[in-house]
Amino acid sequence: MPCLVCVACGKRYPLATALRCNDCNEPLEVRYESLKPPARIKDEPCFITRNTNIFPLPNLRPELSLGEGTTPLLGAPHLQADTGLDTIYLKNETVNPTWSFKDRGTSLGVQAAVWFGLSAIGTVSSGNMAASTAAFAARAGLNAYVFVQEDMPDGKIEPIAIYGPHLNRGVGDYGQLYFNALSLGEKHGIYFISSDNPFRVEGQKTVAYEILDQLDYQPLDFIVMPVSSGGNMAAAIKAGEEMEALGLTKKAPMIIGVQAAGCSPIVTAVAEGKEQIEHFGQPNTIAHAISNPMPPSGNRILRKVKEGRAHVVSVTEEQILAAQAFLASQEGLFVQPAGAVPVAAIRKLAQEGTLKPKHKVAAILTGSGLKDTSALALHALKAGAVPVDNLELALKGR
Amino acid sequence: MPCLVCVACGKRYPLATALRCNDCNEPLEVRYESLKPPARIKDEPCFITRNTNIFPLPNLRPELSLGEGTTPLLGAPHLQADTGLDTIYLKNETVNPTWSFKDRGTSLGVQAAVWFGLSAIGTVSSGNMAASTAAFAARAGLNAYVFVQEDMPDGKIEPIAIYGPHLNRGVGDYGQLYFNALSLGEKHGIYFISSDNPFRVEGQKTVAYEILDQLDYQPLDFIVMPVSSGGNMAAAIKAGEEMEALGLTKKAPMIIGVQAAGCSPIVTAVAEGKEQIEHFGQPNTIAHAISNPMPPSGNRILRKVKEGRAHVVSVTEEQILAAQAFLASQEGLFVQPAGAVPVAAIRKLAQEGTLKPKHKVAAILTGSGLKDTSALALHALKAGAVPVDNLELALKGR
Repeated sequence: MPCLVCVACGKRYPLATALRCNDCNEPLEVRYESLKPPARIKDEPCFITRNTNIFPLPNLRPELSLGEGTTPLLGAPHLQADTGLDTIYLKNETVNPTWSFKDRGTSLGVQAAVWFGLSAIGTVSSGNMAASTAAFAARAGLNAYVFVQEDMPDGKIEPIAIYGPHLNRGVGDYGQLYFNALSLGEKHGIYFISSDNPFRVEGQKTVAYEILDQLDYQPLDFIVMPVSSGGNMAAAIKAGEEMEALGLTKKAPMIIGVQAAGCSPIVTAVAEGKEQIEHFGQPNTIAHAISNPMPPSGNRILRKVKEGRAHVVSVTEEQILAAQAFLASQEGLFVQPAGAVPVAAIRKLAQEGTLKPKHKVAAILTGSGLKDTSALALHALKAGAVPVDNLELALKGR
Repeated sequence: MPCLVCVACGKRYPLATALRCNDCNEPLEVRYESLKPPARIKDEPCFITRNTNIFPLPNLRPELSLGEGTTPLLGAPHLQADTGLDTIYLKNETVNPTWSFKDRGTSLGVQAAVWFGLSAIGTVSSGNMAASTAAFAARAGLNAYVFVQEDMPDGKIEPIAIYGPHLNRGVGDYGQLYFNALSLGEKHGIYFISSDNPFRVEGQKTVAYEILDQLDYQPLDFIVMPVSSGGNMAAAIKAGEEMEALGLTKKAPMIIGVQAAGCSPIVTAVAEGKEQIEHFGQPNTIAHAISNPMPPSGNRILRKVKEGRAHVVSVTEEQILAAQAFLASQEGLFVQPAGAVPVAAIRKLAQEGTLKPKHKVAAILTGSGLKDTSALALHALKAGAVPVDNLELALKGR
């Protein structure tokens, strides 16, 4: 039977709703007695059925899936030309059922809630996780309790509310809202599928498995991805360790986590040689989805950097916006600002010479551009205007 | 060598950029000398490579694909319970690369433009087709000329403009804009991939092939889908005819096209026994993506209804909104209003007894809810507000 293990001290817990270690307050992760490889994508398209071997729960219910995962791994001809790298792949997570990578983790979180016999799940989020949680709860017939920031505009509320969750603005301190929501959940049997919830992490790890499956397990040097809470990045690192143990790959890709310079607590801690993450202070970045100033899985990432499993790097606002524009106007992929940071990092690291032409690199594009349109104004995008009876004016300067 | 054939008079044309018959002004469609089945999804994930056998062009370039197609076919447990039907599938086209079904057709349209040696494509659209055209052009390194309505708000312009097309508002009559754009294209070598462009139709037909592949070619009674210009519906009908000819299925699914009652020129023509579509007048529906009052492939659909290949049906605004809410809050799938009309129709036809419990039905969900959020205000969605230090108030009336 799999169990939960503290990622810092190794203390073991049964497979239950506990989220963090009583002793260290560090995250728990799933540990398996024995692990078998997942099925191949070509043999089993369903996310749940395919990954049964690498998920810790028995009696999984594939009918609760919304078709998450199994996203395309595309080439990147224009980014290759731009950076001089020979081999770049783009893992397009914007085509998940609620159009972000979060759906992988929510899927397994819901399976866990059902297995625990709970009838409600919850989240504190103002973005991708809120929609994902509400959607999967609807499908599974669970209640969803979603708490959002006090000042969230209606335009952001509606695309979450349409899924029918119990949706409330938390009036007061947003940081405190998170802890109070967890307490509420413990008391009332609402399973909060937070960013580094151990089952969410098991769901999120599938993206790295999929990338290697899509490459027929040929060697890949780097996976570059955004990092905010650290949960998703920890999942990719865990996948690499598991794939090595399973013999699926001899050497797992190094994971490069990317933060916005305007909210880079993990990069700062690494640069300063710290053992512990410190609060970054007020975030200042357009990449809202990765603006966590005190990442709950930050220390865990620090340890993985020391073990040589991971790197972290930051990119500027200008680099983020440029990468967002590049991806849309060159590769035809419109991502939210947080989804563009891996491409910003690849361009930066290639220019610095850290990434070399022979390196094989995959970037994870985490969320659709339609999910956070606030950056679009910064691109100064506009349309011209031409008279219907003189459309040739549209060809000017062709 | 395949050729183009007028769908009304059968006049043959070479495989070129012609869009309509010189004699009848009816659409042209691709006719094959011989056709072989496409590869199976499990054997070939790439849309272009898999479907080479059912596409008319040689030397297709898979690297221009954005990962379109290969979308999930989900069960619909809640809709089944609601309607009493035993078997309903939901084909989730909202997870295409620009989050609508249009990407299938644009993909092949771009292949055609490249094959014709053209360096520019174009469209007249205020919605899904504009984004799709701009995205695929970017990927292929083509210029994109996109013309939109004079009064299009900036919030709708930006998610198209980010792909970097030549984007212009057409000042003047919108109906005339379409014809003038086609003339501009002919004169200047810009290939307009309009709704019933013969190559677009070949791309769009793949959705019906995929549904049957995903069902292992077991019998399916109905495919229910929105109909606006008629091009996409004609594509699904064509796929059925081809699959019968190929022996992939004994009897192809009947295609049920659904219009909003507030813009239902095809339904009206069928009801009145007309031979020709008449202009519907001013559209009045929240389902903007299917509000074409004078569908260019309308007569073609009328003929298919008479041949017994298709039905058409209309649904009210209330039914559309109810179906949109049902899909999100029960099945966990948030679609734009036009994407909800098939579900509205299934509920209506089941209630009337036209659809019976034993019928096997698939609904095509054409576009993401994030692509047209104007209907959300009509759902009167809102969030509550609870104090951070008393979250239990969120459980009220649980």
